[in-house]
Amino acid sequence: MDSPVRQHSLREHNLALVLRRVATNPRPLSRADVAAATGLTRATVSTLVDDLVAGGLLAELEPVPRAGVGRPATGLALSPHGPCGLGLEINVDYLAACVTDLSGTVRHQIVRHVDQRDRPAGDALAAVAELAAEAADVAAAEGLPVAGAALAVPGLVRQNPHGGGHVHVAPNLGWRDVPVPAALGALTLRVENEANLAALGELQAGEQDPDVSPSFIYVSGEVGIGAGIVLDGQLYRGAHGWSGEFGHLTIDANGPRCHCGARGCLEQYAGQDAILRAAGVAGEDAVPAGLERIQRLAQAADPAMLAALGAAGAALGIALAGAVNLLDVDAVVLGGSYAPLAPWLRAAVEEELTTRVITAGWSPAEVRASALGPEATVVGAAGSVVRDVLAHPAAWLATLS
Amino acid sequence: MDSPVRQHSLREHNLALVLRRVATNPRPLSRADVAAATGLTRATVSTLVDDLVAGGLLAELEPVPRAGVGRPATGLALSPHGPCGLGLEINVDYLAACVTDLSGTVRHQIVRHVDQRDRPAGDALAAVAELAAEAADVAAAEGLPVAGAALAVPGLVRQNPHGGGHVHVAPNLGWRDVPVPAALGALTLRVENEANLAALGELQAGEQDPDVSPSFIYVSGEVGIGAGIVLDGQLYRGAHGWSGEFGHLTIDANGPRCHCGARGCLEQYAGQDAILRAAGVAGEDAVPAGLERIQRLAQAADPAMLAALGAAGAALGIALAGAVNLLDVDAVVLGGSYAPLAPWLRAAVEEELTTRVITAGWSPAEVRASALGPEATVVGAAGSVVRDVLAHPAAWLATLS
Repeated sequence: MDSPVRQHSLREHNLALVLRRVATNPRPLSRADVAAATGLTRATVSTLVDDLVAGGLLAELEPVPRAGVGRPATGLALSPHGPCGLGLEINVDYLAACVTDLSGTVRHQIVRHVDQRDRPAGDALAAVAELAAEAADVAAAEGLPVAGAALAVPGLVRQNPHGGGHVHVAPNLGWRDVPVPAALGALTLRVENEANLAALGELQAGEQDPDVSPSFIYVSGEVGIGAGIVLDGQLYRGAHGWSGEFGHLTIDANGPRCHCGARGCLEQYAGQDAILRAAGVAGEDAVPAGLERIQRLAQAADPAMLAALGAAGAALGIALAGAVNLLDVDAVVLGGSYAPLAPWLRAAVEEELTTRVITAGWSPAEVRASALGPEATVVGAAGSVVRDVLAHPAAWLATLS
Repeated sequence: MDSPVRQHSLREHNLALVLRRVATNPRPLSRADVAAATGLTRATVSTLVDDLVAGGLLAELEPVPRAGVGRPATGLALSPHGPCGLGLEINVDYLAACVTDLSGTVRHQIVRHVDQRDRPAGDALAAVAELAAEAADVAAAEGLPVAGAALAVPGLVRQNPHGGGHVHVAPNLGWRDVPVPAALGALTLRVENEANLAALGELQAGEQDPDVSPSFIYVSGEVGIGAGIVLDGQLYRGAHGWSGEFGHLTIDANGPRCHCGARGCLEQYAGQDAILRAAGVAGEDAVPAGLERIQRLAQAADPAMLAALGAAGAALGIALAGAVNLLDVDAVVLGGSYAPLAPWLRAAVEEELTTRVITAGWSPAEVRASALGPEATVVGAAGSVVRDVLAHPAAWLATLS
């Protein structure tokens, strides 16, 4: 709104418009289809398409013979050899990397199980840079230029506008005041909270499906609990990028002390350690690790675990009801380790939403398990890079000239 | 993003751009200033300005002699005779109307104290239509064309895109399933939740001040409690227009029963009736009415009332801390009857925010009393009409031809 639309930005806008029209259409489109759908002239569309093809963003498919007179039209689709995004993740017990192409298809994925808890932040960053280099090699071998990288961290992140940033605190990694470099080699590196990127992954996974709501809260439960908020198809990051600190919503003002200093935070009722504690199962050093132990006991219908999951679901439902009352979103998505636990959490969550959301009688919020599961974060990270290219193709084309 | 930018919408965009540039500048601007600030050519700016002047949106002020050579430039400002907005409000014990001009200045305001509680909805709508006619007469007498009307209702509203809508429920008016007509005479009538419009009023009041954050939660406490959410300078209405049902955030899952059917809602701790009850003061039929009684006792330092306000502030602070953790807004605004009670609520609210907001150590949310007080709603309603004209001047110009 603040930028004047002159010929230059007119071209930028229309490049994005044409690219997006092709990207969101389930079938290849002819230039004439694009002109009809955008209201632009065929001559304008042709010029824009030529630029997008030359820049490797669109590909012209073989003409398909069709009935009727006239030359068969060439079909336009996103290029399978276009720029890709590199997603990276540092989490409590693993590192991950992922490459997605323009269509959002995962072309490469690595997960390396390494406990990060007693490791200096610099070592984790060095290890993830190695993983990134491997992934970039795979992309190069497949002929995919890498447009940039995004790193997911389970913490409170200040993002710098031109790459890099600062992790204020990532409690479960033991990080405090960790700077993140602005680049990995020649690639710009963005850094962001993991739940934000997972919500973006979830959004991308549902974008082709008209039944999937574009307004939802994605809540991810591990030892900590985070949320990503998607409003009208856009990730809402907050004034400082700190939105979605869902684990610290108050369930009981006089409840158990939380590591944050307050009392009765949701994490103390619905975090993994809290669930294990409520079920009377030993602490965090036991094997197998938290989620797996919870799942095994739940699958064995262990009564203490079923009760603990019901109580966790109720606490989660109370906090989610508050969020739905506040934000009027259509859906809540159980993500991270809540996705595999959804069968045991869902009923309690739904009951609280039904009782506590004032509009539940008119339009109840849907409760669903994440479509991607734990991969949502690293896939969302890679997708966030691709999303930027699709939204600003002129910026990508400018890097080529 | 989805609409193609062709010559037609290019003009629409640039009309809005030029108008906004003049509107947001504290001093009159010359055409050359506008060209420099927007990056548009002087010829383009002149054509657009001519259209905006002809449509009564901009006025050319007398040339001010200036030092140096050259013809003194004409100053451009919003026209004091431009289209105005008509704001209307139906509340528990009053009706109100307000006229604001293009600059947001209130040109006329009426408040009529009438108890709406035992009155059929049709009578209240008829009475507010009378008030609207009076206000429109005043606007006509001042030479201000009325661009449209917006009606604030303390309830859950479904807005129709082209005017009118449906009030699902407005508990404190005793309304259920009340249709709102799409027009008042020749004027389009929009209908919206009161807290949303009050938040918009608050946003408008602060828009000229760079120190006022464009991301805040406005919370309004009467018998019920509502909130309006402003994110990055935009009112966030939610997927159905139902955002900000703040009074039903849970404070204690096992707390007192709320009229909504749930237990322990914020309204049961921080609504006017709850404060009076906690202070041991008689119920709602007593004279003077709720807010005034609370204020008198607080000013007299009545210990029971001070304790009740402290407890209400703590409950409010717990709910606001949840909202700030979720949304990462810079400020919370105490509005409606919380504005005059702010001196007795603020300390408890701030204490909960400091303890419970995870990012309070890096960037604490500011707590402030509403700049407009109870008038925020009707002023925001009128302003919402003007805001539409300023955002879409081409639509206004089209009504004139």
